[in-house]
Amino acid sequence: MRIIAIAVMTLDGRIALHERHFTDWSSPEDKQFLREFLQKTDIIVVGYNTNEIAGHELGTYNRIVLTTAVATTERKNEALLLCNPETVDVRTVLEPYKLVGILGGTWTYTYFLERDLIDELYLTIEPVIFGHGLDLFATAKDIGTKFRLESEKPLNKKGTVLLHYTKIEN
Amino acid sequence: MRIIAIAVMTLDGRIALHERHFTDWSSPEDKQFLREFLQKTDIIVVGYNTNEIAGHELGTYNRIVLTTAVATTERKNEALLLCNPETVDVRTVLEPYKLVGILGGTWTYTYFLERDLIDELYLTIEPVIFGHGLDLFATAKDIGTKFRLESEKPLNKKGTVLLHYTKIEN
Repeated sequence: MRIIAIAVMTLDGRIALHERHFTDWSSPEDKQFLREFLQKTDIIVVGYNTNEIAGHELGTYNRIVLTTAVATTERKNEALLLCNPETVDVRTVLEPYKLVGILGGTWTYTYFLERDLIDELYLTIEPVIFGHGLDLFATAKDIGTKFRLESEKPLNKKGTVLLHYTKIEN
Repeated sequence: MRIIAIAVMTLDGRIALHERHFTDWSSPEDKQFLREFLQKTDIIVVGYNTNEIAGHELGTYNRIVLTTAVATTERKNEALLLCNPETVDVRTVLEPYKLVGILGGTWTYTYFLERDLIDELYLTIEPVIFGHGLDLFATAKDIGTKFRLESEKPLNKKGTVLLHYTKIEN
């Protein structure tokens, strides 16, 4: 199993202005990269809020939504499983899958970071500053996870940059 | 006058773990870039905390320290001016200088961002995650300032990346 987080952020490290902020500010080139990435994944994982605001775009992909609204797990349809991360070890649920894509938001990225489960990270940096908003990760734990940059490339002329990192195993 | 902010952050957008956290985690290549940058500036601006933890390294450079410990301005020595940003328009103090370097921390970067005074930004991204800590900017104001990426280059093999942005004038 390989777990890959994918995120777009401003150059000041914000992934959204607030929890209901839809990602309408990212570049078309990043959205295209996301679509190509989604087609490669066996399953994607999103938090409840991310699913609420982006669920209609993710509907065709096999996905797990993390939510405390179910006791443990509940299959809604062939493509959608609800999973309570407080009562279920998400890793166990993911075991059948080879390529897992983590799409956010902050709480979901942080859940995988805290458990040292992020193997790779695709990070798109848009050339804009929000000045406030949601961070990529938010944990009180000491992390310090180190990554290696595998590649970096501009996605367009205005200066969106895509960085691809893999975790360095200790 | 040209105002250039220069900062190093983790890939999750943190510039330090806490206010007294010295930048001992950035790469030698970033430190070398900073030294070369400092030699080009006519004046550098830092906040009180940044000066406390990095002042001995900045001692040879002409600098302004933002602090509320003085009523307006107070010249400490030939190279060091204390300036209270609550009572003095910092822009006026900077007027004699051509190339101004803003070195942080969060409060100082934000002061210049809120007043739309950042013309350029050199942003070094180290391939590490803190998961918490200080953000590059922290403002309640709506910002949305857009930048153009002028250049991006890896600084070393482990994957430190230097991004150079210039503000897009509206």
